[in-house]
Amino acid sequence: MAKTNPGRFFEDYSIGQVLHHAVPRTVTEGERALYHALYPARHALYSSDEFARSCGLPQSPIDDLAAFHVVFGKTVPDVSLNAVANLGYAEGRWLQPVYPGDTLRSESEVIGLKQNSNGKTGVVWVRTRGLNQRDEVVIEYVRWVMVRKSNFDVPAPETVLPDLKKALEPGDLVVPSGLDFSKYDFALAGEPHRWGDYQIGETIDHVDGVTVEEAEHMLATRLWQNTAKVHFDLTFRPDGRLIYGGHVISMARALSFNGLANAQMIVGLNGGAHANPCFAGDTIKAWSEVLDKAETGVPGVGAIRLRLVATKGGEPFALRGADGKYSPDVLLDLDYWALMPI
Amino acid sequence: MAKTNPGRFFEDYSIGQVLHHAVPRTVTEGERALYHALYPARHALYSSDEFARSCGLPQSPIDDLAAFHVVFGKTVPDVSLNAVANLGYAEGRWLQPVYPGDTLRSESEVIGLKQNSNGKTGVVWVRTRGLNQRDEVVIEYVRWVMVRKSNFDVPAPETVLPDLKKALEPGDLVVPSGLDFSKYDFALAGEPHRWGDYQIGETIDHVDGVTVEEAEHMLATRLWQNTAKVHFDLTFRPDGRLIYGGHVISMARALSFNGLANAQMIVGLNGGAHANPCFAGDTIKAWSEVLDKAETGVPGVGAIRLRLVATKGGEPFALRGADGKYSPDVLLDLDYWALMPI
Amino acid sequence: MAKTNPGRFFEDYSIGQVLHHAVPRTVTEGERALYHALYPARHALYSSDEFARSCGLPQSPIDDLAAFHVVFGKTVPDVSLNAVANLGYAEGRWLQPVYPGDTLRSESEVIGLKQNSNGKTGVVWVRTRGLNQRDEVVIEYVRWVMVRKSNFDVPAPETVLPDLKKALEPGDLVVPSGLDFSKYDFALAGEPHRWGDYQIGETIDHVDGVTVEEAEHMLATRLWQNTAKVHFDLTFRPDGRLIYGGHVISMARALSFNGLANAQMIVGLNGGAHANPCFAGDTIKAWSEVLDKAETGVPGVGAIRLRLVATKGGEPFALRGADGKYSPDVLLDLDYWALMPI
Repeated sequence: MAKTNPGRFFEDYSIGQVLHHAVPRTVTEGERALYHALYPARHALYSSDEFARSCGLPQSPIDDLAAFHVVFGKTVPDVSLNAVANLGYAEGRWLQPVYPGDTLRSESEVIGLKQNSNGKTGVVWVRTRGLNQRDEVVIEYVRWVMVRKSNFDVPAPETVLPDLKKALEPGDLVVPSGLDFSKYDFALAGEPHRWGDYQIGETIDHVDGVTVEEAEHMLATRLWQNTAKVHFDLTFRPDGRLIYGGHVISMARALSFNGLANAQMIVGLNGGAHANPCFAGDTIKAWSEVLDKAETGVPGVGAIRLRLVATKGGEPFALRGADGKYSPDVLLDLDYWALMPI
Repeated sequence: MAKTNPGRFFEDYSIGQVLHHAVPRTVTEGERALYHALYPARHALYSSDEFARSCGLPQSPIDDLAAFHVVFGKTVPDVSLNAVANLGYAEGRWLQPVYPGDTLRSESEVIGLKQNSNGKTGVVWVRTRGLNQRDEVVIEYVRWVMVRKSNFDVPAPETVLPDLKKALEPGDLVVPSGLDFSKYDFALAGEPHRWGDYQIGETIDHVDGVTVEEAEHMLATRLWQNTAKVHFDLTFRPDGRLIYGGHVISMARALSFNGLANAQMIVGLNGGAHANPCFAGDTIKAWSEVLDKAETGVPGVGAIRLRLVATKGGEPFALRGADGKYSPDVLLDLDYWALMPI
Repeated sequence: MAKTNPGRFFEDYSIGQVLHHAVPRTVTEGERALYHALYPARHALYSSDEFARSCGLPQSPIDDLAAFHVVFGKTVPDVSLNAVANLGYAEGRWLQPVYPGDTLRSESEVIGLKQNSNGKTGVVWVRTRGLNQRDEVVIEYVRWVMVRKSNFDVPAPETVLPDLKKALEPGDLVVPSGLDFSKYDFALAGEPHRWGDYQIGETIDHVDGVTVEEAEHMLATRLWQNTAKVHFDLTFRPDGRLIYGGHVISMARALSFNGLANAQMIVGLNGGAHANPCFAGDTIKAWSEVLDKAETGVPGVGAIRLRLVATKGGEPFALRGADGKYSPDVLLDLDYWALMPI
């Protein structure tokens, strides 16, 4: 009996199947410190316990994306070990903050299946939930991946395409219990721009850049216990270790502090595409576009919908070529909701 | 008076001498997080406080090898600063888990001496003990190193060869107080294979690989306060900084999760050889062989004796050439006991 | 309205202006562990909570230089984003230890201004204070930087040159409350040399070296939330990312353990020059010179004034050429006071 995990192939998934992912993880102040070493993260709510308390939280949460990466990492052995491509995200929600000492685990439900016409691959949609030690859902999101078939003789399953929202409605967003921006200190946060200062359609070049290194993306990806071979093994991937897409997301989000210092908490992930692969030596820069704004129902807390684009060169604000395809310099096109003092 | 540490030379050791190594170290959740960033560590008992509690422990211990590296690191300035080679390990035992907040220190007793026939070097055997802040021994092991003589005129000491066990007996192994696998969750742990599923002689290719980087091994080696020059100073070692053997051990052990996810706790080190040097750029892979199995006397807790081999290429399961020597691709040949749910 | 931070230019500073720097930071055991991974730090007071308690402190503080880097990092967006050069430090004092859980913020007062004769740049002196969550000053220091003018038409300000001490007097130094070396364990600390064993004028070659890597200095510099582009963006600095001067300071201080293991706490910074730029691939070594010694008024606690020189090659103790300029191999010339058991 082979004892290593071969991963799941397309024919191993069925609608309604629930995958209980392995290896729960306790996140601590160690993970928090490492996040600040790996990314130029400066959002004050995640940097200072005092600042977080002044905003009504008990202490600084673990960065929202760190929590996402931990939840995501657990799904890799069951969902994407044999994936050809990570195709998209939708309906991502942060339902409550994760604090040092919390223990996270993940489970995924198969909600969509579509075999490709070549008969060799198919697309699997899963809704993943991250739960804490009290079995409360802290994060949920849908992602879909293209997965290889192992046995081409297995007939195609009935196609089920999940009905996914193009973007979360403001009413879908959950403001963390107790969050209160009435004593928000803009000087300590680093910028004076409040929710009311941003216009739909406005674009922001975040100016700063980071040239990425092999050691860094591997440290990060291991920290999230993401084990996909392509990120670690140069003999498996002789053209270069592919950098985990989440590393690019976190880098771009951290760079976006410069212009969006008050977009404190990520509460919704509407969609995202890893437009081109990222390799060590690339210099990641970022720009944002304000896609929408909404009130949250909580006094003083506004929601801002942002496109976050990571690039490895080229001019800011150039997303697609004349052919409608992503420019070769674009690494990431992410669509998310964040909370900001009004 | 020269104030820097010249290290000890062969003639500075005598049988029965006890070396009290310097710089005690408090290990915390920071070290725990770094361990997970440096190695693809996924054994659930060390990843989740909740999982550890479900196994009868108060929380996740610091990884057994991290504790070993801290204890080992302290011995370097007194034992191996002038070492030509690290020759072997024996009779290593983990006597109790190390938890975040514990403070470790080390002491070593010289138990063997043998001058080499060239008169310029000799072999020193030490039994090292790692103690916590309550002066309880948490780890003990024997290692022997070849050390240079400084003054060739000093006569050779009487040869004393310690009587070392080829392998620990099952009765030598200490099961941590309270350890209880009766509620062990195999799904959360990541694999269904229990102690009874492994056969003596069985081999497991752990499949995954990690291409190692300079920054990573230096971060690790410094974290354990191991100061041997060869790991850090390229001007001292122009052919390449030699990667600390413990880095290879930890990498291989972490990779062995894939196939040995339930070999949770390391309790015995029977022996080990760093067969060939490891350098940045090498891709470390690992395979294991089941050497023995034993009951521990604690219901539900089995002991499994494993050979863990780290390679930098080549085929799995090829250990030695026709000449009986280690294959040039073999980095590590380690023999240890681990605890597993029966 | 542009939302990113353009930084301040020379004409934006005025005498008496107080800059409240953004993004407070809670430092934890995670930062402490990372400090030990990034630098070969072994001073026992910072390594072991038990050792710190035996010296009268409640637990190990965060390394004095880590605290300095956090305080310094906050000033970068307001002080040195448009700096041409970091010219010097003076009157640096550590007023109380920083412990895991403390939250630091920084503020700077402009105390000196002098436009250069070219009309395009000027020198700004600021006195920076790092405060904890109780609004107690934990660190203060003066630094001066050369900053670009943006609008050359703005007239030069009146020149104000602050009156700075060449070196702190012993009476300026603050011994942490409760510090008591009467039970100091020299064996655990790693060296027998006490304050009385050092002579003014004595020089010490610290022997060890570390070849530095891109990933490491970027991890460190991000950890201190220092965002200066030159450290991260190879497209901005095609000749190589300039390593943050504080990384060199910490590396050299850690290397100085070998010969100065009992120079436990840094309490004063008299001055410092980053003599030449440091790049990845350089091998940092260090030597020290005893500049002065003084009693502190606290029984058993002596102060030692040290020159700490970091080099990237060359012979120890060679500081300047015949022309009086720093040798091209010298990276750092730092002048500080430390506390030592008498």
